[in-house]
Amino acid sequence: MNKVSVYRKEHFNAAHKLYNPNWDDATNKQVFGKCNNANYHGHNYVLIVKVTGEIDAETGYVIDLKVLSDLIQNEVLKKFDHKNLNLDTQEFKHLNPTAENIAVVIYDLLRPHIKSDLDLKITLHETDNNYVKYPA
Amino acid sequence: MNKVSVYRKEHFNAAHKLYNPNWDDATNKQVFGKCNNANYHGHNYVLIVKVTGEIDAETGYVIDLKVLSDLIQNEVLKKFDHKNLNLDTQEFKHLNPTAENIAVVIYDLLRPHIKSDLDLKITLHETDNNYVKYPA
Amino acid sequence: MNKVSVYRKEHFNAAHKLYNPNWDDATNKQVFGKCNNANYHGHNYVLIVKVTGEIDAETGYVIDLKVLSDLIQNEVLKKFDHKNLNLDTQEFKHLNPTAENIAVVIYDLLRPHIKSDLDLKITLHETDNNYVKYPA
Amino acid sequence: MNKVSVYRKEHFNAAHKLYNPNWDDATNKQVFGKCNNANYHGHNYVLIVKVTGEIDAETGYVIDLKVLSDLIQNEVLKKFDHKNLNLDTQEFKHLNPTAENIAVVIYDLLRPHIKSDLDLKITLHETDNNYVKYPA
Amino acid sequence: MNKVSVYRKEHFNAAHKLYNPNWDDATNKQVFGKCNNANYHGHNYVLIVKVTGEIDAETGYVIDLKVLSDLIQNEVLKKFDHKNLNLDTQEFKHLNPTAENIAVVIYDLLRPHIKSDLDLKITLHETDNNYVKYPA
Amino acid sequence: MNKVSVYRKEHFNAAHKLYNPNWDDATNKQVFGKCNNANYHGHNYVLIVKVTGEIDAETGYVIDLKVLSDLIQNEVLKKFDHKNLNLDTQEFKHLNPTAENIAVVIYDLLRPHIKSDLDLKITLHETDNNYVKYPA
Repeated sequence: MNKVSVYRKEHFNAAHKLYNPNWDDATNKQVFGKCNNANYHGHNYVLIVKVTGEIDAETGYVIDLKVLSDLIQNEVLKKFDHKNLNLDTQEFKHLNPTAENIAVVIYDLLRPHIKSDLDLKITLHETDNNYVKYPA
Repeated sequence: MNKVSVYRKEHFNAAHKLYNPNWDDATNKQVFGKCNNANYHGHNYVLIVKVTGEIDAETGYVIDLKVLSDLIQNEVLKKFDHKNLNLDTQEFKHLNPTAENIAVVIYDLLRPHIKSDLDLKITLHETDNNYVKYPA
Repeated sequence: MNKVSVYRKEHFNAAHKLYNPNWDDATNKQVFGKCNNANYHGHNYVLIVKVTGEIDAETGYVIDLKVLSDLIQNEVLKKFDHKNLNLDTQEFKHLNPTAENIAVVIYDLLRPHIKSDLDLKITLHETDNNYVKYPA
Repeated sequence: MNKVSVYRKEHFNAAHKLYNPNWDDATNKQVFGKCNNANYHGHNYVLIVKVTGEIDAETGYVIDLKVLSDLIQNEVLKKFDHKNLNLDTQEFKHLNPTAENIAVVIYDLLRPHIKSDLDLKITLHETDNNYVKYPA
Repeated sequence: MNKVSVYRKEHFNAAHKLYNPNWDDATNKQVFGKCNNANYHGHNYVLIVKVTGEIDAETGYVIDLKVLSDLIQNEVLKKFDHKNLNLDTQEFKHLNPTAENIAVVIYDLLRPHIKSDLDLKITLHETDNNYVKYPA
Repeated sequence: MNKVSVYRKEHFNAAHKLYNPNWDDATNKQVFGKCNNANYHGHNYVLIVKVTGEIDAETGYVIDLKVLSDLIQNEVLKKFDHKNLNLDTQEFKHLNPTAENIAVVIYDLLRPHIKSDLDLKITLHETDNNYVKYPA
């Protein structure tokens, strides 16, 4: 039987800055530009969680999107919404909070809570013009 | 030669409710929540039809999107637009009109009318935050 | 001092049909067309509530948008979300649920709960292409 | 002659937190909730500048939107984009950076640079669901 | 009785260039920049027609939006959609097709067809970032 | 290691017409309809460039989106923005500027400038309702 993908879109607002602690200030400034601003800047992140699997014949659902939304709320938004990613989270204490890295972290937070026969993909919009998908 | 995908977006507005006739009312309410409201609720569905194939050297088209739009109008929108999916359609008389099932039904309605060397995928948005794709 | 307007956007999904009980079926069909479908159809309504007043010097707010959002939830969304406007609500038992009338009803539901020195306006989107504002 | 309004939309990304230095921490937390997070959070602000006046018969313009865009860039975006509004700007050193206050500040930054016979209004979106307009 | 505004959104795609026949090429280039490209460029124009009046007690409508849509189709889109505004239209043979001027022209095309007790306003988006409203 | 896709969205405005020089006028009119208008029409094209690869451990980037944006500016937008695709570009002198063909041309313009271990895909929106992706 062919599989169906279902998508749930959520939002969180966070501060961050991009920098590599192994580099000096000039290199950080050169590589990360405005995103290296010492006192942080921020974004309205748009998070889209995609789950792929077979339709359950009883419910007509691949996964109940209300359940998926609650899961995202508990495992991701509680940690990241209205937070400073660099200062307030364990996940980005030692990891540069680029959109790419945030998407991988969110995948790793959600994967254990989704049944193994369901496929998972994360899309994260940092701005309207810049976004990422993981796994590709 | 590499292939190109073309997409046509259409809209329809319909009422529906989710329920499983094999379950009692309490179970339906528990599983489907607000979507089980006895007198129905409704959505502005956004339908995106994706067709993949090689570019025709004469026209520069994979498929004429005006022709595809007319096909969607005739095979899908005439049946579902401004209708009650549960009461007014053959397709959902005995099938729960979840977004997943609607996407599969639309695929099956369109597939016979599209040439076999063209690939077909359906994306259906039930709300801005909830949508599905078939085949995955 | 010049005033500021603040806006809060919310959503609800509902079924409805348009008809005038004083008219025969043919007249209803002629005037309301597809929107007169006997078994209802539905929409993802987008509701924007605009409140205008002076900025409070202590908070920097005209009105706390979290408070406004809770008010909309309690006074409007609980009544209309995932409901059949014609069958499930007191407000539209004897009033045709056009976007115009829904906007006026929502205004009347919210007005008593907002301080009298604050101005109130309602925008209601029935579809992406059709929407209304009250008062004009 | 009737007047025409022209609009130019721009974007900036900034960190901020809401707090009142005259209040204790508990009161700040109670009033501003998540927006009071000590280490800041952030937003993709959408700024819409509206200028109203008569059409110039030579150009067909009310104001050249390229000139208006450059003005917004120089007077607003250079100060606020990829910055911490509380820490990196003079304007919000002693003013709570609510959307209302940011809109008034942007108005005051732009007003001296726009000819006095042209009317000016600012719309600022903090999120998709929360936005403000000044003057009302 | 308070009035309600209703809005209908339509689209058209057209080519144009900006220039003033009384100026030399260098001045046209300096004032209109890229928009002066000799062989034209083009836009997906988004047109929003706003009509304000009292709700008709029989229909619940200010104006039937299907009727308004047909009117826009006949009076505006047939003239401008998939056309070169400078070459293919009477209206812009001797008038620079800026967004401001296009909005005024569309107002003048529609005004005679809308009852005199209804107010009319035109919003025209040339791009996502640039748009105009007439009358202001 | 799993790969990540990053996306950069850009815009350009251009005039075009669709026609096949090997066909007579009637056939061109029949096949391309309104898009065959002799004096051209135009669009706000939305271009999304997707690059897939592994995250660089030093930067946290797959590719610096500022670098990608500059590349798109230099290789694509300088050629096509505010131009007549049929008359002003080498690429479409002898190639019908359908969305499909434009996407392939943009791919070929960008591919040599992106490292060979990175995958490239182009999405091009001609209107909100019609868009294409290459390679599929």
